[in-house]
Amino acid sequence: MSTTACRDPAEAPEEQRFLSTEEAAALERELLEDYRFGRQQLVELCGHASAVAVTKVFPLPAPSRKQRTVLVVCGPEQNGAVGLVCARHLRVFEYEPTIFYPTRSLDPLHRDLTTQCEKMDIPFLSYLPAEVGGPCTRALATLKLLSIPLVSLDIPSGWDAETGGDSEDGLRPDVLVSLAAPKRCAGRFSGRHHFVAGRFVPDDVRRKFALRLPGYTGTDCVAAL
Amino acid sequence: MSTTACRDPAEAPEEQRFLSTEEAAALERELLEDYRFGRQQLVELCGHASAVAVTKVFPLPAPSRKQRTVLVVCGPEQNGAVGLVCARHLRVFEYEPTIFYPTRSLDPLHRDLTTQCEKMDIPFLSYLPAEVGGPCTRALATLKLLSIPLVSLDIPSGWDAETGGDSEDGLRPDVLVSLAAPKRCAGRFSGRHHFVAGRFVPDDVRRKFALRLPGYTGTDCVAAL
Repeated sequence: MSTTACRDPAEAPEEQRFLSTEEAAALERELLEDYRFGRQQLVELCGHASAVAVTKVFPLPAPSRKQRTVLVVCGPEQNGAVGLVCARHLRVFEYEPTIFYPTRSLDPLHRDLTTQCEKMDIPFLSYLPAEVGGPCTRALATLKLLSIPLVSLDIPSGWDAETGGDSEDGLRPDVLVSLAAPKRCAGRFSGRHHFVAGRFVPDDVRRKFALRLPGYTGTDCVAAL
Repeated sequence: MSTTACRDPAEAPEEQRFLSTEEAAALERELLEDYRFGRQQLVELCGHASAVAVTKVFPLPAPSRKQRTVLVVCGPEQNGAVGLVCARHLRVFEYEPTIFYPTRSLDPLHRDLTTQCEKMDIPFLSYLPAEVGGPCTRALATLKLLSIPLVSLDIPSGWDAETGGDSEDGLRPDVLVSLAAPKRCAGRFSGRHHFVAGRFVPDDVRRKFALRLPGYTGTDCVAAL
């Protein structure tokens, strides 16, 4: 898988197509500027789909209340906003999310999504328990030590968006949810489940960026890759 | 059913609870002002859920391309925006929506949602075919003459939000999708399927407005009443 990112996608029609950083930015611009999607709208769609992906891999045992707990770690950028929406939908789906969001964005979108979670009584951790408290880089060190399964949204924390970076050094998520379309680093993903949450991407945009994605079933908002 | 709206809901704990116009406005204010939901966000959630409700009642025959056509009639108010989102999701679900949106709102939300539909090549009718062309009131007269099944969002066109009005005179939808929670006029609905699309309404708000709604299953965004 790790060689995929090095090939010209046009030469490998049968393979997954992963977007470079520039292509991903161009795709987002197309959605925002040409199609006039709103950021609030895209973040809501992506966060909802991410929560649905979590339910597919970790379905709730019907009668039990065990294993409903999820820790949602959010950075200050756009994917952190997606994480906040994901946490809210997980709560609606009767999971018990807790949010760790150490560096809060001043963006009104982030603030509104934070208020929604707070008002819904989703707990926010002020620090990660145990030996490491502090900024996100140290929180990542803690996450790497955990044996519980990790779900990453789009680009796993600490990974290089293009190469994935040194996979020995980064997080090793069990589940990856690519937002809109898989980014190049996804070629390095070796976990159990890879989903794409991009059903909202119009057909013309998929063709323009030569996305070769599996079909979505019924009204599903995510598809397994 | 038609007497339900006249009773004090507190005296009828086993019955459906329908919101008065004032209560519905207060619930929406609570979501927008206290919970800081965005209008774009709520309209997206409601439009998506409305499209899912349509797929439940009129599922696509797997191999056939017949009966994929849907006419989505949108007014200039907020539920018209929900209709535009619904049409977009129906297109994503591989239906063939056509939009009739005779009085266009200047609201940027409506304009952006219209652009999304136009860019996705969803056709817009400039007038309803056959004998009646003109404003919405005359379009309603045409809809009343049609034998194809009608789906209404929240308050069927022409109905009084409180009483439902003279049901002989109004549309008789086969399917009603109540947004957030059923409004009083829903007590008069006598069609085949009544859904509520309000899974996003937080538990505290449901309790505050004494909403007695069925549980949503799995990750479903609509529930049958």
